[in-house]
Amino acid sequence: MPEYNKLTPEIAGKLRAIVGERRFFCGDAVKEDYSHDEMPIYGRAMPEALCLVESTEEVSEIMKLCSAERIPVTVRGAGTGLVGGCVPIHGGIVLSTEKMNKILSYDMKNLVVHTQPGVLLCDLAADALAHGLMYPPDPGEKTATVGGNVSTNAGGMRAVKYGVTRDYVLAMTVVLPDGRIMKLGKTVCKTSSGYSLLHLMVGSEGTLGIITELTLKLVPKPLMDVSLILPFADIAAAIASVPSIKLANLDPQSIEFMERDIVDSSAAFTGNAVFPTVVNGKEAGAYILVTLVGDSEAQLTEKMDRLGAVAEQVGAYDVLVVWTDNLKKDVWAARSAFLTVIEAETRLLDEMDVVVPVDRIAEFLVYTHDEAEKQGVYVRSFGHAGDGNLHIYCCSNDLEEAEFKRRVKLLMDACYAKCTEFEGQVSGEHSIGHAKKEYLRESVGDTAYGLMGAIKDVFDPGHILNPGKVCHTV
Amino acid sequence: MPEYNKLTPEIAGKLRAIVGERRFFCGDAVKEDYSHDEMPIYGRAMPEALCLVESTEEVSEIMKLCSAERIPVTVRGAGTGLVGGCVPIHGGIVLSTEKMNKILSYDMKNLVVHTQPGVLLCDLAADALAHGLMYPPDPGEKTATVGGNVSTNAGGMRAVKYGVTRDYVLAMTVVLPDGRIMKLGKTVCKTSSGYSLLHLMVGSEGTLGIITELTLKLVPKPLMDVSLILPFADIAAAIASVPSIKLANLDPQSIEFMERDIVDSSAAFTGNAVFPTVVNGKEAGAYILVTLVGDSEAQLTEKMDRLGAVAEQVGAYDVLVVWTDNLKKDVWAARSAFLTVIEAETRLLDEMDVVVPVDRIAEFLVYTHDEAEKQGVYVRSFGHAGDGNLHIYCCSNDLEEAEFKRRVKLLMDACYAKCTEFEGQVSGEHSIGHAKKEYLRESVGDTAYGLMGAIKDVFDPGHILNPGKVCHTV
Repeated sequence: MPEYNKLTPEIAGKLRAIVGERRFFCGDAVKEDYSHDEMPIYGRAMPEALCLVESTEEVSEIMKLCSAERIPVTVRGAGTGLVGGCVPIHGGIVLSTEKMNKILSYDMKNLVVHTQPGVLLCDLAADALAHGLMYPPDPGEKTATVGGNVSTNAGGMRAVKYGVTRDYVLAMTVVLPDGRIMKLGKTVCKTSSGYSLLHLMVGSEGTLGIITELTLKLVPKPLMDVSLILPFADIAAAIASVPSIKLANLDPQSIEFMERDIVDSSAAFTGNAVFPTVVNGKEAGAYILVTLVGDSEAQLTEKMDRLGAVAEQVGAYDVLVVWTDNLKKDVWAARSAFLTVIEAETRLLDEMDVVVPVDRIAEFLVYTHDEAEKQGVYVRSFGHAGDGNLHIYCCSNDLEEAEFKRRVKLLMDACYAKCTEFEGQVSGEHSIGHAKKEYLRESVGDTAYGLMGAIKDVFDPGHILNPGKVCHTV
Repeated sequence: MPEYNKLTPEIAGKLRAIVGERRFFCGDAVKEDYSHDEMPIYGRAMPEALCLVESTEEVSEIMKLCSAERIPVTVRGAGTGLVGGCVPIHGGIVLSTEKMNKILSYDMKNLVVHTQPGVLLCDLAADALAHGLMYPPDPGEKTATVGGNVSTNAGGMRAVKYGVTRDYVLAMTVVLPDGRIMKLGKTVCKTSSGYSLLHLMVGSEGTLGIITELTLKLVPKPLMDVSLILPFADIAAAIASVPSIKLANLDPQSIEFMERDIVDSSAAFTGNAVFPTVVNGKEAGAYILVTLVGDSEAQLTEKMDRLGAVAEQVGAYDVLVVWTDNLKKDVWAARSAFLTVIEAETRLLDEMDVVVPVDRIAEFLVYTHDEAEKQGVYVRSFGHAGDGNLHIYCCSNDLEEAEFKRRVKLLMDACYAKCTEFEGQVSGEHSIGHAKKEYLRESVGDTAYGLMGAIKDVFDPGHILNPGKVCHTV
């Protein structure tokens, strides 16, 4: 494969002609923001040019040009990724979907929304609610774009009940690397019509094609919900309760876990101690936060009673009902603040987003903390107990960057190996980007990794789309 | 691509050595059953040999041999398909999974079952229930294998609430055409770890690899359910009620529709008229059958009240509650007998399994019936109103085979074109096989169809696995 070409003034002129003067930036006119995502430890790279695209046709024209000229193209949503997925590590142009931020229409008879990919998750969620509908995927990062969520198959808090982003993508418009426009899927939930290119696109991190329009499934807005906090002696006891909760026919919307220290940090940060630290004279070491949904107070009360019985059996210190809107807001604000709290406390950060079978979470966390202590790395963790997805953050504190990176590498190598041993996956929702490529290869094995590479060749024979990511090495 | 080779006595000897004398059949020893599925109108083809495999290792050895010798291999589950998917149209061997019929183990902490692919759907469903769990996918054909269900992404009656087979496949073992063994997925529900080869395998009809083990997600068994029959004046009125039912926050498990004539036939066939034909002096022309699930009688009663209010608004003649176990059994037996009834009444049959957006069902049915009348083809239909999946059967009655095929071809051409115009999909759950290839190509377009073909090349460069199916032409 020959090397990529650099952007010449002539090509820049053609790009400027496609998107227009006001949406084309070149050289020093490109803001530094476009050189990194929210995990800059994996490196920064300035693009040679930036196009703020507005339509499928523009994207198609750009791809035809860049394909012919062998200029790499990296798509970027809101840049909230954590694995370097939108960083143009081989130069070329960044194609930002930030201006493709229109919710196009609702189809109330088929319960779907047609949207551009640059719409923010929080905006889509609010707009759907205003239509009496809910968009169920609910990742912690609300200012991500829905296109980014689809490209990483983001999961979020409600996955236990509702599944992940993949489960809500019914159709999309895709621009292939050579500029051809392809429509995948329809406004239907059931299909057995050839290989699912749609499911191949979901989670492909902008390496196979560029998503320019989405049809997403919605559900009726749940009538009522209540959250419950279950304090436990320690994380092992907390996690051990999860299978019983899942078996109790409560159909919970979320089952989150959190360790005591991060709850304390969050309380200090928000100034609002909503999680009880001492319950009936006993220190809580970890918590399970459950959200139940229902149609009526009677139904929720009945579900809460059953959860209470389960909680007693599994050794919870108490069941604290979070029923009022204000308290609910505070509790979920505390939960949502975890990453912000961690970022505020440390200079440098690295992260793991592994998924392990639910019954291995506690064991995995114990292993991680032991290894972290061995390597001298400070670790904070929280995550989705209901689906085994852990967010584990390594904080540099006072360590020098080089030393921090050296220690984190040793810790990550050990933890990802343990994750594979536990039959887990490298990433639950943050994806691979260029940061986790080696761990992916080790986890899935050479045969599957080789097939992924061959699929990349099929869609992008010139390797110009987001090069160096997922299963591609330049 | 060179032609396929014929089975020589030497290769036959090697196959016999792999699976053993008692599970290898050759020439006349192969039963005629293995030459067709349940829709023989698409042609029969005898395999040169039949292997009743029992393990992943045997499958791997067979594939290594057949790959080297260029012998086509077609996998077969229970042979209940309707599009010729398991018919060895280019000869070679049929590899039947019927002996791989063991449910291997349950993991009650992670709510999954590990199973061989040859287990029948009815056996898995019953066994899961005995463990207090439910396997949600519920296609009408209960004697299909789960491997076949995964290979076609079968949907069934409960898809409105629970989704389709795809949503329950967490992991699988796959033997590639060259004999390599690959494991895809893990016992986790959330993942963002490279391209989803797992989702590519689901619905690929045995053309990319051979599934030899499955890890399937289960859910707690619902505590209670009730079915309700809503009679309407005609099919248009019945279908028009569906969006309102879906928006009423009832989370129904099924929403089925049926036309009056098929209900009459079913009543005559089973000797049990469970659907009322005259309601308050008015002739019912069509029905909606809704199943609701819940945790308590109180909750179900409350949901029934709300459904009753919706039914009145949308013009249902009545709401008949099917509450007792016996009546429920009769109603669902009548529903399940539809295909059997149709088969019993006609000599030759052809079928369509399109999906259209829910709000286009009635319009599509009217079009189909008009076209059928124009072509002189007798048509029966029923299906899944909640997800737009229609099962439309063309019955030959007294027509000669050649004339029937000629007329059906004209009818199908028109209906599939209309389906594409309505933004529908060629197949909801019966798949493509070799019967629907041209309709698939027309529906998805040359770009997507070409990508499917290129993916086939990646997995099966020698084109020896189930040749001539889905997107492959010899």
